[in-house]
Amino acid sequence: MNQIFEKLQPYLEKEMAFSTALTLMDWDMETLAPKEAVDYTSKAVGVLSQERFSSIINPEVKKILEQLEGEKGLNCFECAVVKKLKKEYKKTEKISKEEMREFSELTSKALHAWQKAKKAKDFSIYAPYLEKIIVFKKKFAEQGKEEGQTLYDVLLDDYEEEFDEKVLDEFFSKLKEKIVPLLKKIEKQEDIEDSFLFFDYDEEKQEEFNRWLAEYIGFCFDRGVIAQSEHPFTTALHNHDVRITTHYYKNNLASALLSTIHEGGHALYEMGVDDEFTQSIVGGGASCGMHESQSRFFENMIGRSVPFWKPIYGKLKGIFPKQLENVGLEKFVKALNKVKADFIRTEADELTYCLHIMVRYELEKQMINEEIDVKELPKLWNEKYKEYLGIEPKDDTEGILQDIHWAMGSIGYFPSYALGNAFAAQIYHQMKKDLPIEELLEKEEISKIVDYLREHIHQYGASKDAREMLKDLTKEEFNPDYYIAYLEEKFKGVYGID
Amino acid sequence: MNQIFEKLQPYLEKEMAFSTALTLMDWDMETLAPKEAVDYTSKAVGVLSQERFSSIINPEVKKILEQLEGEKGLNCFECAVVKKLKKEYKKTEKISKEEMREFSELTSKALHAWQKAKKAKDFSIYAPYLEKIIVFKKKFAEQGKEEGQTLYDVLLDDYEEEFDEKVLDEFFSKLKEKIVPLLKKIEKQEDIEDSFLFFDYDEEKQEEFNRWLAEYIGFCFDRGVIAQSEHPFTTALHNHDVRITTHYYKNNLASALLSTIHEGGHALYEMGVDDEFTQSIVGGGASCGMHESQSRFFENMIGRSVPFWKPIYGKLKGIFPKQLENVGLEKFVKALNKVKADFIRTEADELTYCLHIMVRYELEKQMINEEIDVKELPKLWNEKYKEYLGIEPKDDTEGILQDIHWAMGSIGYFPSYALGNAFAAQIYHQMKKDLPIEELLEKEEISKIVDYLREHIHQYGASKDAREMLKDLTKEEFNPDYYIAYLEEKFKGVYGID
Repeated sequence: MNQIFEKLQPYLEKEMAFSTALTLMDWDMETLAPKEAVDYTSKAVGVLSQERFSSIINPEVKKILEQLEGEKGLNCFECAVVKKLKKEYKKTEKISKEEMREFSELTSKALHAWQKAKKAKDFSIYAPYLEKIIVFKKKFAEQGKEEGQTLYDVLLDDYEEEFDEKVLDEFFSKLKEKIVPLLKKIEKQEDIEDSFLFFDYDEEKQEEFNRWLAEYIGFCFDRGVIAQSEHPFTTALHNHDVRITTHYYKNNLASALLSTIHEGGHALYEMGVDDEFTQSIVGGGASCGMHESQSRFFENMIGRSVPFWKPIYGKLKGIFPKQLENVGLEKFVKALNKVKADFIRTEADELTYCLHIMVRYELEKQMINEEIDVKELPKLWNEKYKEYLGIEPKDDTEGILQDIHWAMGSIGYFPSYALGNAFAAQIYHQMKKDLPIEELLEKEEISKIVDYLREHIHQYGASKDAREMLKDLTKEEFNPDYYIAYLEEKFKGVYGID
Repeated sequence: MNQIFEKLQPYLEKEMAFSTALTLMDWDMETLAPKEAVDYTSKAVGVLSQERFSSIINPEVKKILEQLEGEKGLNCFECAVVKKLKKEYKKTEKISKEEMREFSELTSKALHAWQKAKKAKDFSIYAPYLEKIIVFKKKFAEQGKEEGQTLYDVLLDDYEEEFDEKVLDEFFSKLKEKIVPLLKKIEKQEDIEDSFLFFDYDEEKQEEFNRWLAEYIGFCFDRGVIAQSEHPFTTALHNHDVRITTHYYKNNLASALLSTIHEGGHALYEMGVDDEFTQSIVGGGASCGMHESQSRFFENMIGRSVPFWKPIYGKLKGIFPKQLENVGLEKFVKALNKVKADFIRTEADELTYCLHIMVRYELEKQMINEEIDVKELPKLWNEKYKEYLGIEPKDDTEGILQDIHWAMGSIGYFPSYALGNAFAAQIYHQMKKDLPIEELLEKEEISKIVDYLREHIHQYGASKDAREMLKDLTKEEFNPDYYIAYLEEKFKGVYGID
C-alpha cells in the first residue's frame, strides 16, 4: 500500500464501520423493527450519520488528500478511493455545517408534509417545503458549478457522473419522438389477456417459488438474505451480505415474480463486486443508473422473455395448477409484457416506464434552471401525463405527490432510472454478439450470463464510472438508440404492429 | 439539566448510537445474517466497539467528571449516569491500551481454541489460552483492587455490584448443605413420567403457540421482536425495541415453552424501563443477577406452576390433542418440574441448576485467588460433579468445555445466574405478601404481576443497583434463605418427600 494513502486507512475504516451499521439499521427498520422503535432508533441513526460524514470530511483527511495530489504510485483501488473522496469534498466543502443542518431539518419536515399531503391528496400542504428545497438545491448547485455546467448538471452529477442535460435532452427527445407514437398505436390494438395473473395465489406458495427463483438466477443464500417489506428494495452491508425484499400480494402473481428478479439483478451486482473493493467507499455499484441497468436487464430482457421461462414455467404451473390451467408459456409471457398507460411510476410496464421518468426530468430541470412557480407543478404534471401517456391523474396523490424523491432533497435522481434501462439495452446489444443468450436460458445456464456481467461490470464496484464501463464493454459511448430500437422491436412484436 | 452534566451529552449520545448499532449487529449475526457475512461484518463490529469505548473513555469526559466531583444539583438520572461512568473509568483506566488490545486478541484466539477443543473433546487444546486469560484477569484485578477486597471480589464487581465472595461463600455453603442431600433423596423417589414432552411437535404450531404465550405474559409486539436462533437470548436496542429468540425442537415441547417464558421475563424487564433512562448507559437492567431474577421468576415461579397453566393448558392441548391426549394439567406441570442430575448447565432443571453454578464458582474463585494448575481443571471439575450432582462427565465436552464464558474472559459472571434465582425467590416471597398471585394467574391477570415488577424493579433501569432495589422492595438485605426454603418446599412437594 502507498505510504501516504495508508494514512487514510483509519478514517476509511471508521467510514466503513459507520456505513455498515447504518445500512443494517435502515434494513432493519424497513423489515423487522417493531412499530414503536423508529422514533428512538432514528436518534441513533442521526448521530451515526453525522459521525459517518465527519469520519471522512475533516481537516486531517483533507491534508492527506493534498499530500496525495500528483502522487504516482497508487494502485487501481487507491486511485478510485482518492477520486471518490475528492468528489465528496468538492460536493460538500462549500456548504457550511449550518446550511447542512438547516437542509437536513428542512427535508425532514418536507417528508412529513409530503406524507400528510399525500394522505390529504393536497399538494398545497407540501408545496412551501418543496419551494424551499428548490432554493437550497439551487444554492448548492451554484456553489459547486463549474464552467460550462448548468445548475441541473451539477445536481445530476451526484447520481450519474459524466452525464449532463445535453445528453439527457437528446435521449428524452428521441424517446418522445418514437415511444409516444408507439404507445398510441399499441392502445389501438386488442388488449392482452392477463386476468389470470390476478387470481388467488397463496402467499406462502409464492414465497417458496420466489426464493427458488432468486437462487435460480444466481442469488446465493450463503451471502444474502431475502425478506419482506412494504416496497421491495436491495441493500448490502458488503459483497458477502446482500439483502433484497419482496412483497407478496394475494391477487397479483407477477408483482413478486418481477420484483424478485429485479431486486435479484441488483443483488447479483453487489455480490459480484471483487473482494479488493469491498467494505470501502468504492465497494458498491458504479452509479444509480448502472445499478438500475442490472435490475432492469434481469427484470425485462431476461424475466419477461420466453427462453427464460421455457425451462421453469412448468414448475410454477405445478405450484398453481388451477390458476394457470389454461395458460401456456407464450400466453403467460405475453401477459407479463402487457402495456397499459397508468398513473403510478413504480407499477408501470416496461414501455411506459421511461415516459413517467420523462415527465419528472422535464419538471425538475425546469425547477432548477428556470423560475417556475412550484404551485403550478400539479397542473404542469397533469398536462404532461396527458400529452405523453394520454391519461390525466384525478388527484395530486395519483399525480405529483406519488414519489418521495423531491421531498428527500433528491433532485437529479430520476433520470438514472431511465438511463439504467438504456444502459441495459446497450449492454444487451453487445451481449447478444458475445453469448447465445436464448440458448443459455433454455439450457438453464443463466450463470454464464451472470459471469459475463460480473466480468465486465460487477467486479469493478465503483472503481470505474458507468460511462467508462459501458465504453470498455461496448466499444462505444453511451448510445440511447439501442434502447429505442429494443423497445420498438419488442413491443411491435408483442402487439403485432408492423 | 445540570450545566456541567450537559457537557457530557455529545459523548453520551455517541455512546448510545454506537451501542445501538452494535446491539443490532450482534442480534443480526445470531438470527439472520448469511453465513459468509460474519468475517466481514466483524471488522465493522471491531471498529465500532473501539469507537464506543473511546466515546466515553477519553480525556475530555474525564475532565468533565472531575468538574462534576461534589456537584450537588444533579437529578436522579444524572447521578446514575455519573456513577456508572466513574465505574467504567475505574475499571479501565489503569489498563493500558496495549494491554487491552493484547487481551482482546487473546480472547479472540481463546474462543477459537475453545471451539476446536470442544469439537475434539480435548481440554488441552484450550488450556494454554485459559492460563493466559487467568494471568491477565489477575493482573487487571490487582490494578483495580481496593482495601479489603480479594482479587475475585474485584472481578465479581464487574457483574454484580456490592457483592463479594464472603456473601457468595455463605450462599453456596447453604446450598451445598441443603440442596445436595435433597437431590440425593429425590433420586431415590420414583421417576416423574414426562415422555409425552418428547413426542413429535410440529415446529410451526409450536411457534404459533409460543408467540401467543409471549404476548399472554405481557410481551408487546409493538415494541418487540421474536426470532429464532441456535441458543435463545434477549437483547434490546432500547426500551421500545426489545428482542428475544427461541429455538424450536421437533421432539421437545418444553424447551421452547420455557425459553419463551424465560426470555420473556428478560424482555419485560427491558420493556418496563422508564423513558427517562432509555437510550443511556443506565437504560438496561440493574445487573446480570437482577436480570436473571426476572427471567427465572417467570420461568420457574410462574411458568412451572399449576395456576399459570390452569387457564391456558386447554389451548395448548387444543393445538396438540394427540400428543397430550392422556395428560392432565397436574401431570403436565409435574413433568415440567422433573429433576434429573445431568451434565449440561443450560439444560438443567430448576433444582440442580444452582449446583452447576456452584462448581463453576468454586473453580473460578480458586483460579483467581489461588495458584491452581489449569491443567488440573478437568479432574477437579469432574470430582465436583461427582460430589454435588452424583454424576461424572464422560469427556471434556460434557464437562469443563461446555461453557463459553471463561474463553470470552468473563470470570466472575457465573454467580449472577445463581444470585438471580435467589433474588427471584426473595422477590417472590415479598410478592406473595402483596399480591394474590395464584388467584391472579388463574384469572389471567398476569399483567398485575408485571405491573408490580415494573413498579418495584423494571422502571428504574440501572439507576439503582440490585442490592438497593432488593432492599427497597423487601425491606431486607439479600437473604439466600428464601431461595433455599423455596426449593426445599417446592421439590419436597413435587416428589412427595416429608
